[in-house]
Amino acid sequence: MKKIPVGILGATGMVGQKFVELLSSHPWFEIVALAASDRSVGKRYGDAMKWSMQVALPQNIADVPVVACLPDLPCNVVFSGLDSSVAGVIEENFARAGYKVISNSSNHRMDPNVPLLIPEVNGDHLKLLEHQRFGGGTIITNPNCSVIGITMALKPLLDKWGIEAVHVVTLQALSGAGYPGVASIDILDNVIPYIAGEEAKVEKEPLKILGTYLEPYVMRLSAQCTRVSVADGHLACISVKLKEKGSANEIIAAWRGFKGEPQELNLPTAPKHPIVYLEDERHPQPKLHRTLEGGMAVSIGRLRECPLFDWKFVILSHNTIRGAAGCAILNAELMAKKGILNESFSYGKYSLRSELRTPNLF
Amino acid sequence: MKKIPVGILGATGMVGQKFVELLSSHPWFEIVALAASDRSVGKRYGDAMKWSMQVALPQNIADVPVVACLPDLPCNVVFSGLDSSVAGVIEENFARAGYKVISNSSNHRMDPNVPLLIPEVNGDHLKLLEHQRFGGGTIITNPNCSVIGITMALKPLLDKWGIEAVHVVTLQALSGAGYPGVASIDILDNVIPYIAGEEAKVEKEPLKILGTYLEPYVMRLSAQCTRVSVADGHLACISVKLKEKGSANEIIAAWRGFKGEPQELNLPTAPKHPIVYLEDERHPQPKLHRTLEGGMAVSIGRLRECPLFDWKFVILSHNTIRGAAGCAILNAELMAKKGILNESFSYGKYSLRSELRTPNLF
Amino acid sequence: MKKIPVGILGATGMVGQKFVELLSSHPWFEIVALAASDRSVGKRYGDAMKWSMQVALPQNIADVPVVACLPDLPCNVVFSGLDSSVAGVIEENFARAGYKVISNSSNHRMDPNVPLLIPEVNGDHLKLLEHQRFGGGTIITNPNCSVIGITMALKPLLDKWGIEAVHVVTLQALSGAGYPGVASIDILDNVIPYIAGEEAKVEKEPLKILGTYLEPYVMRLSAQCTRVSVADGHLACISVKLKEKGSANEIIAAWRGFKGEPQELNLPTAPKHPIVYLEDERHPQPKLHRTLEGGMAVSIGRLRECPLFDWKFVILSHNTIRGAAGCAILNAELMAKKGILNESFSYGKYSLRSELRTPNLF
Amino acid sequence: MKKIPVGILGATGMVGQKFVELLSSHPWFEIVALAASDRSVGKRYGDAMKWSMQVALPQNIADVPVVACLPDLPCNVVFSGLDSSVAGVIEENFARAGYKVISNSSNHRMDPNVPLLIPEVNGDHLKLLEHQRFGGGTIITNPNCSVIGITMALKPLLDKWGIEAVHVVTLQALSGAGYPGVASIDILDNVIPYIAGEEAKVEKEPLKILGTYLEPYVMRLSAQCTRVSVADGHLACISVKLKEKGSANEIIAAWRGFKGEPQELNLPTAPKHPIVYLEDERHPQPKLHRTLEGGMAVSIGRLRECPLFDWKFVILSHNTIRGAAGCAILNAELMAKKGILNESFSYGKYSLRSELRTPNLF
Repeated sequence: MKKIPVGILGATGMVGQKFVELLSSHPWFEIVALAASDRSVGKRYGDAMKWSMQVALPQNIADVPVVACLPDLPCNVVFSGLDSSVAGVIEENFARAGYKVISNSSNHRMDPNVPLLIPEVNGDHLKLLEHQRFGGGTIITNPNCSVIGITMALKPLLDKWGIEAVHVVTLQALSGAGYPGVASIDILDNVIPYIAGEEAKVEKEPLKILGTYLEPYVMRLSAQCTRVSVADGHLACISVKLKEKGSANEIIAAWRGFKGEPQELNLPTAPKHPIVYLEDERHPQPKLHRTLEGGMAVSIGRLRECPLFDWKFVILSHNTIRGAAGCAILNAELMAKKGILNESFSYGKYSLRSELRTPNLF
Repeated sequence: MKKIPVGILGATGMVGQKFVELLSSHPWFEIVALAASDRSVGKRYGDAMKWSMQVALPQNIADVPVVACLPDLPCNVVFSGLDSSVAGVIEENFARAGYKVISNSSNHRMDPNVPLLIPEVNGDHLKLLEHQRFGGGTIITNPNCSVIGITMALKPLLDKWGIEAVHVVTLQALSGAGYPGVASIDILDNVIPYIAGEEAKVEKEPLKILGTYLEPYVMRLSAQCTRVSVADGHLACISVKLKEKGSANEIIAAWRGFKGEPQELNLPTAPKHPIVYLEDERHPQPKLHRTLEGGMAVSIGRLRECPLFDWKFVILSHNTIRGAAGCAILNAELMAKKGILNESFSYGKYSLRSELRTPNLF
Repeated sequence: MKKIPVGILGATGMVGQKFVELLSSHPWFEIVALAASDRSVGKRYGDAMKWSMQVALPQNIADVPVVACLPDLPCNVVFSGLDSSVAGVIEENFARAGYKVISNSSNHRMDPNVPLLIPEVNGDHLKLLEHQRFGGGTIITNPNCSVIGITMALKPLLDKWGIEAVHVVTLQALSGAGYPGVASIDILDNVIPYIAGEEAKVEKEPLKILGTYLEPYVMRLSAQCTRVSVADGHLACISVKLKEKGSANEIIAAWRGFKGEPQELNLPTAPKHPIVYLEDERHPQPKLHRTLEGGMAVSIGRLRECPLFDWKFVILSHNTIRGAAGCAILNAELMAKKGILNESFSYGKYSLRSELRTPNLF
Repeated sequence: MKKIPVGILGATGMVGQKFVELLSSHPWFEIVALAASDRSVGKRYGDAMKWSMQVALPQNIADVPVVACLPDLPCNVVFSGLDSSVAGVIEENFARAGYKVISNSSNHRMDPNVPLLIPEVNGDHLKLLEHQRFGGGTIITNPNCSVIGITMALKPLLDKWGIEAVHVVTLQALSGAGYPGVASIDILDNVIPYIAGEEAKVEKEPLKILGTYLEPYVMRLSAQCTRVSVADGHLACISVKLKEKGSANEIIAAWRGFKGEPQELNLPTAPKHPIVYLEDERHPQPKLHRTLEGGMAVSIGRLRECPLFDWKFVILSHNTIRGAAGCAILNAELMAKKGILNESFSYGKYSLRSELRTPNLF
């Protein structure tokens, strides 16, 4: 199969780097453009940033010159890890120019016609694309890094018993703050009980995702978000009030049996078990479980009765894989499998940057 | 004023060491006996443990030989930092022998006739001592290290508006696990979302404290407790449902105006402001605020409306000072001021250990 | 090829667990016995310890009952991760009973007839086995976790220019202290500039390894060892005085070209490049480079002139892989390839523990 | 005594904040101006930066408007915590305008006529001021944060036995990198074995300090500098070759007996014991000993013979107190006591900023 050429917007940031890491050996996609801010344009990618991933940067990608975030990239599909301060306009520009924009940024998440997608949860929201008016291009987004794990944990409960109310306190990892992010002197021997804008996202995004593609789900949700001294892996302590009663065994069975389209369609990035329930009462822990299923699984543990609501439990998800780049890539895989990305790609329609036209560039 | 001679049970443990640190220069109390387990008996105190306090161990105390936890100590008052695996019986033995036992251990906290005391909150519970049947001796306890801060934060709200429900998630410090406590390899780059027995304490103890000395307060309370990589200072994310409505300004004013007997009586260890409300939305933080008022204040911040209950906020208290030894000492000061510890002390009634009788021992 | 059955002594400790992790899918060896102290004997292996490896414990190994460290195991070869407080006698017992003991413990390292082996450096020291008098059995050891990386870095310099003097300061990881090892409260926001017994090992073992199998290499070596807040990966700052002068380029070339028998024989655990020289002046770093070549490579960086000696540089090696279990396994692979482990193994000679004789145990 | 009015240049940085903290209650000096870069000018000091000191920022200082680093401040003496990228020119401007500039910056440290001063070590280097040609003003500097502790530890050995060679490996704290400094994601579970420019300073500055005011001391010195996950307190592992032999007891006695002008003159910031030798082989440790003598003492431990040189040992000093602001203030105190700062101060000679002339500003 000929791979689908893709570009990465914001390729030098933390999420951008994770896109590069995960896509550099992807069976369906091939990186053909790395775009970033003016400060990086023209530099070799390997020189334009401090590579922070655990896996070594492939040499052929390190040598690629970084280009500007302009809609003249030699591809049809772009992954966006842009900072939200600039993502809004740039992503729209790409969509209007006909690109499929697979975005991790927050700017368009709550737009009525933009899918806020977790493939296991609400793949049917892709219907919203029919309502987009970008002239051929589209924008689809994945949720906030904390929201993805929380929403996946709630989905099987909602399907079976309905949910009335959710209380969440998150303990979030440092990589969620980007790079350089939190100063070491601020977090060593400390917790910072505040993350700008985070609680509003956690309180809103799940309702859109868990609803139909036309209407949000109705439930009450309260979130408190804190930053802790952990590299990767967002933990959340959740209490939940169901509409109908389920037993602990039924709930665990619902989690363990949970599957969605990515599993049915056998998508390359799909975890075999999107939710893993752990029996040990000390689990899940970021260091031990964040990389389960390649970082694409949500780990859950400590299900027990809640004196206030019905149940309380602890969840964990890898914030830059399942909670960001990995989810975006799974979104793209779902779209590819459904034929939404499959339109034939023609180099002919691009002409601005001749240096990117050379067939042996990558 | 002649100082009141006191002993410390479990003097080699973390809480015991904090007792030693805080009492070594106390204006009212004087350490005359350091008691610990058989393993330490006979050793110089300075050799019997690894001193872990920031302040240097005074030489005259380092030289004291550790004695057994037997009720023949040359004093009337003992502070107990004993491990709960042994505290139950030993504390009763001391009480039956006529000692005033000021305990930080959990064993007798929920006994009907034992005060579970935070001096600013429920000093009147000392009335329970009249019901104790130890033959002259008494046991009074302070609450769990997380409970003290939470309960102090709730008290002014309860007094003014009443409380229906409370949801708590704690992020607790390493020193709360004693020594050696948590292995470094387990907590570096990690969070452990489980502390044995802690959630049950946090769900029960506040009800006893906030009630009358005869009946617990009735409200629903749910707790999730986690361990984070912080040396000292327990943080808690709290959501609260009040019986009547109060505004944010009124709530902050209630916290800032909160005072109790320790402040009125000007007790030596009393913080001037038992509750400090911080305006910065990033506060409180363990590293920045745990030592406010010598570690005896509870810091609160981030008061905001809660979509589920009425209000949510974040609190912080120093777990080994306000949350343990400091609270116990404040308990003893309150008792001393009220004349409950003031009975004349006579060396004559002790005779078992002649080596402790020498007047120039300390 | 039929796999060689092996046992693991001290299987529940940190090194023992690493043996289990690395051997559970080894192409040549098959775990047939897990032995530990009396406290664990009879328990399922999965219940006998807290599994601390990143990779999940295979279920078939978790179910194995732990047996005692007695020389009646159904195999010819045992890997020893025993604590040095007990390893001396137990390992001798196994050797006398005819076992090949591949040990990571320090007890027999400096015995004249016991090879202290790093396969890339001194595979020829296996000749010492001819001098061992255990009656068929043998003991071979790998060096201390810090020593392995240091000695590998020195070997190419010694071969080409000779070495007169070496100054080493180590910054060692927490996992080197075993489990539970260092208390979290002791190392958070701290460095401990002392590791019991470590400096003597670092000053002695390299001389034996770098010498002939009969005589130690003669050079002066001084070590200071510290413990830092890092999970895995020992770093060392080294200054070295050569006998003859080499240029920086020559030295780097010597490191990069370094190979030994494991590479020539293509042993399964052999790193393709035993030494990796990194150009970035901020490298090597534990977090970034400890797992290079599956944790079996030594990373070196920052080669520069030393005002006191000739050269200074920084090295890093993974202390529980290259520095312990991985090196021991490479030792065993070398022995297997050379026919020293290959003697036919007969279940018949063991008869004590019938429950371990069942063919379907694993 | 009327206090000497002083200004602080670079008041918003980490060193600047430490100056503010230490000078806010100084018995001899009074802060009358806080100067910083254009970004901060005009803001309240409390709003111009993130206050990172443990002690709360005094309200009267928080309210002061920040002014530009121009030589029209209402004082004769300025402390400079300026970044070295700008300190060179600004400090010269102040000196030329007649100010006494007490600088912590590195720019002028190695200037032949600028004293590089540790009051206990080389107070006589103040003679260099006679050679300065700034027209009334002067610049004096304190050494690099690592150099101060190292040099103080060497001084008593040099005085008694002479020093031929020194080998140093440092483990430096995060606060030494300024704010925000090292990214948390870079140092969690890691060591960075490189600090830009640091090794050159550690290899040069001690020679100037330990020499006469005209000529550097001659010895060989090699340094390797690393960054570790510690908030405050630089540790150094030192090996030293003496010119004549001293015993361990003599060396420890030399350290313990070490005193200088600050002790003789009883300067307010002078530690009673500038060097503290600790007997416990696990000491010194940053967390336990960095605040000895208010952070102004150098802690030393682990003196033992070195197979390569004569002796090796470990030292610790607080990098922002003894190693920066505290040393600068001690320098100023020494100058004040010697009458070099005592020239009468007249508001009359300043006229540029009338808003700073108001007598009730502070």
